[in-house]
Amino acid sequence: MHPADRIQAAIEATGSIAVVGLDPRPTLIPPALRAEAARRWGETRLAVAWAFAEFNRRLLAAVHGACCAVKLQLACYEAYGAPGLQALEDSVTEARRLGIPVILDGKRGDIGDSAQLYAEAWLGAPAGFAGPLPAGASGDWLTVHPWLGSETLAPFCAHGGIFVLVKTSNPGSGELQDRALAEGGSVAEAVARLVHRLGEGRRGACGLSSVGAVVGATWPEQARRLRALLPDALFLVPGYGAQGASAEAALAGLRRDGRGCIVNSSRAIIGAWQHAASSDWTAAARAALEAMNEELRRARG
Amino acid sequence: MHPADRIQAAIEATGSIAVVGLDPRPTLIPPALRAEAARRWGETRLAVAWAFAEFNRRLLAAVHGACCAVKLQLACYEAYGAPGLQALEDSVTEARRLGIPVILDGKRGDIGDSAQLYAEAWLGAPAGFAGPLPAGASGDWLTVHPWLGSETLAPFCAHGGIFVLVKTSNPGSGELQDRALAEGGSVAEAVARLVHRLGEGRRGACGLSSVGAVVGATWPEQARRLRALLPDALFLVPGYGAQGASAEAALAGLRRDGRGCIVNSSRAIIGAWQHAASSDWTAAARAALEAMNEELRRARG
Repeated sequence: MHPADRIQAAIEATGSIAVVGLDPRPTLIPPALRAEAARRWGETRLAVAWAFAEFNRRLLAAVHGACCAVKLQLACYEAYGAPGLQALEDSVTEARRLGIPVILDGKRGDIGDSAQLYAEAWLGAPAGFAGPLPAGASGDWLTVHPWLGSETLAPFCAHGGIFVLVKTSNPGSGELQDRALAEGGSVAEAVARLVHRLGEGRRGACGLSSVGAVVGATWPEQARRLRALLPDALFLVPGYGAQGASAEAALAGLRRDGRGCIVNSSRAIIGAWQHAASSDWTAAARAALEAMNEELRRARG
Repeated sequence: MHPADRIQAAIEATGSIAVVGLDPRPTLIPPALRAEAARRWGETRLAVAWAFAEFNRRLLAAVHGACCAVKLQLACYEAYGAPGLQALEDSVTEARRLGIPVILDGKRGDIGDSAQLYAEAWLGAPAGFAGPLPAGASGDWLTVHPWLGSETLAPFCAHGGIFVLVKTSNPGSGELQDRALAEGGSVAEAVARLVHRLGEGRRGACGLSSVGAVVGATWPEQARRLRALLPDALFLVPGYGAQGASAEAALAGLRRDGRGCIVNSSRAIIGAWQHAASSDWTAAARAALEAMNEELRRARG
């Protein structure tokens, strides 16, 4: 299925445009699960990886049906080597078993053959090739850097959906992205034009293309301008919640038909147990996600 | 040791400014080694990873003493999952055992905690942390994307050297990097200024800083301009040989004191056996490296 149609179908089935960020860290693992991991595996990276996989498995069961996708930050898994990759593989496999679309937040970007290898590794390998993810359990979407030019993004487009880093949520994102070009507009707007060109001819049945954009919730004015340049792009919106942006700000880039934005939240959902009265941490995650859905629903009007 | 001093010491010990790119692909593995891998492990990704580790081990023995560093393209290893990571770990450990500086070509770039995780994963973890590379066997340098702004590069600087992608060697690199800014100069030149600022206070005894720049051999005019903006940066120069640039072009960014550039070659060295008369593939790699050293020496005058 076209990657945008897969997300759109999940939005229609769940009524949610929330993306749950499965970005585990040791400090986000509830104490009981941490203790269980230590009992089984001692103080090793295997214990961390096992805890990540188990944490995600139970979170996926809890958020299933109430989000349109999950996003896995590759840095969290890569930091633990081979056991970390195994936890990633287990989590992606489980998400796919549940029918939840998978966004891999790898922020990859390289030239020629290397771009091709990253594309095959994360978005799907050719038949007979055994990559880091098992056959049939690759990501639907991968986040990518535009800095090396659109020729380096093309290999990814052949394998799945990409979210190009157009305007990121971090405070210092403007240092390069907001610079004014001699030709007019900002560098981020120039990137938006490239994204639009790459997406032409790659629209799914839902009208959105498989070349999307990361547009931070922290810059609503720019999200509006970028939407004008990117009428058919799905925006993956980080920065809501933990990074301080409101639901209204996160939805600044919505299209008139109410489509075109999916909003990520990680720590506020998967770490909700840290501020919950009860010790039922999966219930805390589900409740935080439902509160987010409600906020987004109200903001969409 | 400061990462620039480590490279400078290797340059002085070997008389070489060549970097050998250990970027293995199945097609670059000599037939006898490929057959041995298949005998041991069948047609699996384990066979590929074993062949990569063995290929690199023998290559490292062959090029040792005739290059100033090795560069490992992470995409090549990541594509094979956990066994691929093991091959990477084995190769980095072996390079360090031989005293060869290690550049990890991961082209990473992310915000906040994720940048921190990538930095710890590839440039050295805090004590007690077990990352993808064993303690004491992390990279000396990592390549990084500047697109998210210099605040996202700072976490890397605390852990080791970084080569920031300033002007890449690929044909389409100009699409963003060469755009003219309203303030004057190109976007790549603006990145160069950020790199220079980040490098202040990070100079080693050799006078070069731990914040370097990737500057493609394919753009010698720009390398000269970038050198003026980056007097203390080590340039990692790709694009020589297989990508068509001459030794003169690769050295366009040299400082007056003859320092400041190291030149990468991958396929032309590790795949030299494909065009050699003899079946001794390690000798072919060594001969290709010595020919490259000779060319670079002549070009330096």
